[in-house]
Amino acid sequence: MSTAVQNAEEAVRALPHRLVAAMNARDLDAIMSVYVPDQSLFVFDTMPPRQFVGAAAYRRAFEGLLATYSGPTTYTVVDLDVTADEQLGFAHYVVNMLGTTATGRVDEMNFRLTSCARKIDGQWLIVHEHVSFPVDLATGQADFLARP
Amino acid sequence: MSTAVQNAEEAVRALPHRLVAAMNARDLDAIMSVYVPDQSLFVFDTMPPRQFVGAAAYRRAFEGLLATYSGPTTYTVVDLDVTADEQLGFAHYVVNMLGTTATGRVDEMNFRLTSCARKIDGQWLIVHEHVSFPVDLATGQADFLARP
Repeated sequence: MSTAVQNAEEAVRALPHRLVAAMNARDLDAIMSVYVPDQSLFVFDTMPPRQFVGAAAYRRAFEGLLATYSGPTTYTVVDLDVTADEQLGFAHYVVNMLGTTATGRVDEMNFRLTSCARKIDGQWLIVHEHVSFPVDLATGQADFLARP
Repeated sequence: MSTAVQNAEEAVRALPHRLVAAMNARDLDAIMSVYVPDQSLFVFDTMPPRQFVGAAAYRRAFEGLLATYSGPTTYTVVDLDVTADEQLGFAHYVVNMLGTTATGRVDEMNFRLTSCARKIDGQWLIVHEHVSFPVDLATGQADFLARP
């Protein structure tokens, strides 16, 4: 593997860790700094609507998550796997959340994530993200704690 | 954009269309021909478990889907967007399903898909796929028909 590809893999690998560190810090600007900052961002998020288009819309989704879990909350990257070349990369991983709501309820969730990144003007940015829980097709019920 | 990148984008764009044509034909071998044919395939699918590892495991998931919708069923690619360079590519899109079960019940579903592909020995193959429905976080209920 060339040094350039190794550097690219490291850069793509760093994105989920930067995202989760920013979420643990409740720093919305730092969260959004891993995403392309314009209308080209396209996200399939955990919750409706079907898709979020643009950084401003996805920022509001993160605001909602941080507001729901306003008590002590920890996010952790699990099972990260990265593929990259010099211009494009993608990563799949799980983010484990131990979150506390305003009323003190503690929820644990395992978010499944795919982040697709592109090197734009020398900077690696996520341009597409897909976040989900598996669903029982018979009952329509999500498994928030899905184990491997 | 270089001709090589244009060709790569065309190749990645063709993968979802080949997949859906194969699903409409109920041809499992043709379905699996768009995926890397070994243990390196990694999928976050709509249903539990959390992840499917390897082509054999994902093939069984498709067998299950085709068995559930054993009556007249049509899959259609919607809103496909592709990014690629000469070695890697990713696509996000929706697959609309109008499916008929063995008992004659007709279900409509909009699957959200992200497919990450790699050129391996001259052939473009999906190495990671993420398929999901959005979920109401308060009730845990999936929205199978999610609209934009």
